[in-house]
Amino acid sequence: MNEVRIGMLGFGRIGRLHAANLAHSVKGAKLVAVADPYLNDDGIAVCKALGVERWGKDEEPIFAAKDIDAVFICSPTGYHTDFIRRAAAQGKHIFCEKPIGLELDDINSALDAVKKAGVKLQLGFVRRFDHNHRKVQQDVASGKLGAPHIVKVCSRDPEQPPEAYVKVSGGLFVDMMIHDFDMAMYLAGSDITEVFTLGAVKIDPMFAKYDDVDTAVVSLKFANGAIGVIDNSRAARYGYDQRVEVHCDKGCTRDENDLISTNIVSTADGVVTEKPTWFFLERYNDAFIEETKEFVNAILSDTDVPVGGHEGIMSVAVAMAAKKSLDEHRPVALSEIL
Amino acid sequence: MNEVRIGMLGFGRIGRLHAANLAHSVKGAKLVAVADPYLNDDGIAVCKALGVERWGKDEEPIFAAKDIDAVFICSPTGYHTDFIRRAAAQGKHIFCEKPIGLELDDINSALDAVKKAGVKLQLGFVRRFDHNHRKVQQDVASGKLGAPHIVKVCSRDPEQPPEAYVKVSGGLFVDMMIHDFDMAMYLAGSDITEVFTLGAVKIDPMFAKYDDVDTAVVSLKFANGAIGVIDNSRAARYGYDQRVEVHCDKGCTRDENDLISTNIVSTADGVVTEKPTWFFLERYNDAFIEETKEFVNAILSDTDVPVGGHEGIMSVAVAMAAKKSLDEHRPVALSEIL
Amino acid sequence: MNEVRIGMLGFGRIGRLHAANLAHSVKGAKLVAVADPYLNDDGIAVCKALGVERWGKDEEPIFAAKDIDAVFICSPTGYHTDFIRRAAAQGKHIFCEKPIGLELDDINSALDAVKKAGVKLQLGFVRRFDHNHRKVQQDVASGKLGAPHIVKVCSRDPEQPPEAYVKVSGGLFVDMMIHDFDMAMYLAGSDITEVFTLGAVKIDPMFAKYDDVDTAVVSLKFANGAIGVIDNSRAARYGYDQRVEVHCDKGCTRDENDLISTNIVSTADGVVTEKPTWFFLERYNDAFIEETKEFVNAILSDTDVPVGGHEGIMSVAVAMAAKKSLDEHRPVALSEIL
Amino acid sequence: MNEVRIGMLGFGRIGRLHAANLAHSVKGAKLVAVADPYLNDDGIAVCKALGVERWGKDEEPIFAAKDIDAVFICSPTGYHTDFIRRAAAQGKHIFCEKPIGLELDDINSALDAVKKAGVKLQLGFVRRFDHNHRKVQQDVASGKLGAPHIVKVCSRDPEQPPEAYVKVSGGLFVDMMIHDFDMAMYLAGSDITEVFTLGAVKIDPMFAKYDDVDTAVVSLKFANGAIGVIDNSRAARYGYDQRVEVHCDKGCTRDENDLISTNIVSTADGVVTEKPTWFFLERYNDAFIEETKEFVNAILSDTDVPVGGHEGIMSVAVAMAAKKSLDEHRPVALSEIL
Repeated sequence: MNEVRIGMLGFGRIGRLHAANLAHSVKGAKLVAVADPYLNDDGIAVCKALGVERWGKDEEPIFAAKDIDAVFICSPTGYHTDFIRRAAAQGKHIFCEKPIGLELDDINSALDAVKKAGVKLQLGFVRRFDHNHRKVQQDVASGKLGAPHIVKVCSRDPEQPPEAYVKVSGGLFVDMMIHDFDMAMYLAGSDITEVFTLGAVKIDPMFAKYDDVDTAVVSLKFANGAIGVIDNSRAARYGYDQRVEVHCDKGCTRDENDLISTNIVSTADGVVTEKPTWFFLERYNDAFIEETKEFVNAILSDTDVPVGGHEGIMSVAVAMAAKKSLDEHRPVALSEIL
Repeated sequence: MNEVRIGMLGFGRIGRLHAANLAHSVKGAKLVAVADPYLNDDGIAVCKALGVERWGKDEEPIFAAKDIDAVFICSPTGYHTDFIRRAAAQGKHIFCEKPIGLELDDINSALDAVKKAGVKLQLGFVRRFDHNHRKVQQDVASGKLGAPHIVKVCSRDPEQPPEAYVKVSGGLFVDMMIHDFDMAMYLAGSDITEVFTLGAVKIDPMFAKYDDVDTAVVSLKFANGAIGVIDNSRAARYGYDQRVEVHCDKGCTRDENDLISTNIVSTADGVVTEKPTWFFLERYNDAFIEETKEFVNAILSDTDVPVGGHEGIMSVAVAMAAKKSLDEHRPVALSEIL
Repeated sequence: MNEVRIGMLGFGRIGRLHAANLAHSVKGAKLVAVADPYLNDDGIAVCKALGVERWGKDEEPIFAAKDIDAVFICSPTGYHTDFIRRAAAQGKHIFCEKPIGLELDDINSALDAVKKAGVKLQLGFVRRFDHNHRKVQQDVASGKLGAPHIVKVCSRDPEQPPEAYVKVSGGLFVDMMIHDFDMAMYLAGSDITEVFTLGAVKIDPMFAKYDDVDTAVVSLKFANGAIGVIDNSRAARYGYDQRVEVHCDKGCTRDENDLISTNIVSTADGVVTEKPTWFFLERYNDAFIEETKEFVNAILSDTDVPVGGHEGIMSVAVAMAAKKSLDEHRPVALSEIL
Repeated sequence: MNEVRIGMLGFGRIGRLHAANLAHSVKGAKLVAVADPYLNDDGIAVCKALGVERWGKDEEPIFAAKDIDAVFICSPTGYHTDFIRRAAAQGKHIFCEKPIGLELDDINSALDAVKKAGVKLQLGFVRRFDHNHRKVQQDVASGKLGAPHIVKVCSRDPEQPPEAYVKVSGGLFVDMMIHDFDMAMYLAGSDITEVFTLGAVKIDPMFAKYDDVDTAVVSLKFANGAIGVIDNSRAARYGYDQRVEVHCDKGCTRDENDLISTNIVSTADGVVTEKPTWFFLERYNDAFIEETKEFVNAILSDTDVPVGGHEGIMSVAVAMAAKKSLDEHRPVALSEIL
């Protein structure tokens, strides 16, 4: 195969982002078709500008198409597992946004379908493809620093989402911290086996209406004996705060935020540097391209995808454990969930 | 009073450090007498060089001396509360190294004696006087950042202590993390109300022989609703890692390590900067001077000491709770301890 | 006009870079035709991949084409002014790489042709479009720091060019430092009026064979009374060093290099951070896109280009003055050159 | 000799600074006597507090005293060479503040007297003893980076001196930049052989009244073939800006300012770090102690002083050349001066 022909399921913000990357920045990929039940004139104009061949509101033609090798699942979470099963049934490779699903049995059934069909499934844990975090992971994985002892992930959004979003988000753990659970396991090179959650409503009492929190600190135990912690805030005000750190036997590897520029202004009032890049679209722009390149290359060269079904189900299970820990105010083992 | 005349109880490493600071860097203080049961020729030479008037192996003359206004308790922890009671009984002000004691009833009895005598008692939580941490605390206390949401303390020693030390240390929580518990309460401006501990033996199996850990992550709840986390390692290899951070409603204030120099060397092999200053004597050198100055000034001006008995007992109680949490693998409320 | 239709003259490294940017990243631009006397199969394959409509070895069809609105001049410097005159004669807008030319009379004649034709001419001083340097310039131009006093530009290449390049480069001042002369005038918001050059052959005696230097420090006087300095090295080894600084009446604004990542590794051996991005293709990747966007927008909206003929001739004249200063070992006023 | 007994000539700000350091921080030194024609009650109180044995307005008793081994010359510059000659005549070692003098013949005569007497003479170029700059110098001197190519010194005062000071200062080059000339030679490991000066009055027209400038950029040639540049400003507003950089064959070594703290505050308004330590007393506090220790050790161990007469006269000669270059607007060789 010289080219991966792709059908896209869901054409909202994240779908369009991937579509533009496929069109402009990913060699060996061709976005052939788009389906979205809410596709409007604006979406069609985007399709035309990107050279998409066909589009529509019904997703079925994409699964049925003989000339489509792979699908990008960018629909709401509730559709993920169904689309995975239908794509697998047609022998199509799958790129699926996170979270893979909301019910473990359902996710397992989707993963079984993928396994049976022998297709590739890559999950959209985009932060694994970030230049800063990847360097930290590589330092750990190289073994040059010895075993990891403490894994720390600081992850804060610049501003809280609107109430309409919070209502259907599934809560902080499955909506936001799921990225950080995956990052923590990526950095540690090991699955999380237990969590303990402290959560608080500090930013907006609205979160409490939905049995949600806006601020959380979650302690982690890993299968390899490392321990760690994640802290989340829904509103950091100064921008998107994304820092990770792994303290190892022989030293520590960590990263700092990417900044808008390296500028430094010194006056009698103080020394001012720039804020972090605003949010995930700015911060992980290159990582979105990189994850897509690696997915396409895995298909073209028939090699393993860099992040797959195991990561998909583990991250959801850890998010469930974290919420259970918050509710029951005790450490929760993953063995209670999986 | 123009001058505080001081007697020193214990003349080991920390006693001599305070003695040199009193002699050279603290106006209004005069180190009059030194007592240490192991005082040797070397110690006597130090006394002479610093202009100490009298010295000996017996501590009783210091308590009895009419010309001594205050004592510095720099003896092993086991003697702290006894010396506090004896100093208080003689109306002497007291500077006591941390931890104040090892048993809560005993500590309470010492604090009662201090209260009854109306003398000042300052605890040696030196890190409160560090220029970096204090700036963070001031940012929070000023209120300009709004309420604190998340308090983080990263505290790692450069190298593990010898086995002989570990054996009698009381364990990581009361020996090492006690500083960080105090720091966390200092930064939050609020007492810790609950802890949950993850601990591990990662550096040296020797720690396990003494029911101790060398690596720990402790989650914290504060009375004011903030949450937080401390991570400790007994051996960071690259130096003394001392970073704190408080994420607040309107932003985040944090500090970085002090470095040996600001030098940056760029070659084809990479860009190398200097390591943190090696250990607490280097890192908190100025803070040791500052805490002593503030103690002396509090006496001379009859004002409150900056850190007193409440901080002394709270830090010990939190350390106890942290160990209990480790042993019982559950969150432990301070109300179970105090 | 909704779209600027572009013909490209010269399809070497920089031509292909602009071509890819026009195809993928610049809305409102369409690369229609390519001409290069050395166009080979590889170049034709690139044309096809980018959707170029026609290509060939002869440049004349591009000037003659009625459906081409603008040209990108990416040929060797010796052809720049001829191509400018020919494009202007056909009423085409012009983007021209630096330097605009090598002879002042010849440059002036090209600028006259541009003026007479009323077309737009933008020079390829790509660094003006860099996020870091632009922030420094904006700080100065905003006036909030008061008048500029000292302008500093540090500009070092990671490795020396091959002898074949040095031979025909025109020398360090017109080949390399010309970017920095333009940057200095951009930052100061004022033309350079005098230079004094110190040069040395420190990296490779080869440079001396061509009456060239590989290391230089050039002092600058500006029309607005500011003073400044540029330092250049042909081989910094650690990467592309691109730092600027403007010290003003009320403070200083400066930038640091962009790094490969924000990673920090701390071990007993030291604290290692990443090197700067390797060279101009990596460092100014986004700036190349931005300069093209602004050129295209200036045409579409019929507004002024951000950097034009004045900057083109001034930078060449300052480079000539700098070489004259090196040769005659005295300060040289621009009035001696222009 | 176990102890160096010292007499101090001049007891103003810098004299008292050295006196306190000798008393508190320098082992093996004993400040015996102080002389200052303006010695007042305040000065006498300082003498008493520091344990000085005797004091007075007349300097002659210090030169005559049999029990004094060394003098610190902290008087106004006009007295330096006379005091050096008188101290040398009595066989006393000499620490002399910069500049050593204002006339080359006079300086040479003083240096001859020192040489004839066989006493040690150390000049007060305190910045050589700074932890940051010294690390840069050591990197260069070690040879690991290869030959130095470009030496850069950025040196800016936080605020301009009062007119009364400017009037008698001798001008920017001999008063302020003299430190930077010495620093540049220290870093390069080589004497300056030529300078070219750009100067400007940007901060306050008052400077022009005294044929002085407040802003300057001076290009440098060194005997070893390196080139360099110093920039000075009398008023940086944001604090004392003291950064040096040496670009070498294999890479670059540089330093950054010491900051008041490592604090970082991030809010919606930006990311604010602390300013540099305010001025030389804060910035070079430890360096003042270190230079005195090394002087005392050189006497006790009869080894070479770290900075002596050659550095004293060279820095003055370079300052003269820099002023001549400004006046005559041409590069000036040191051979024209010395």
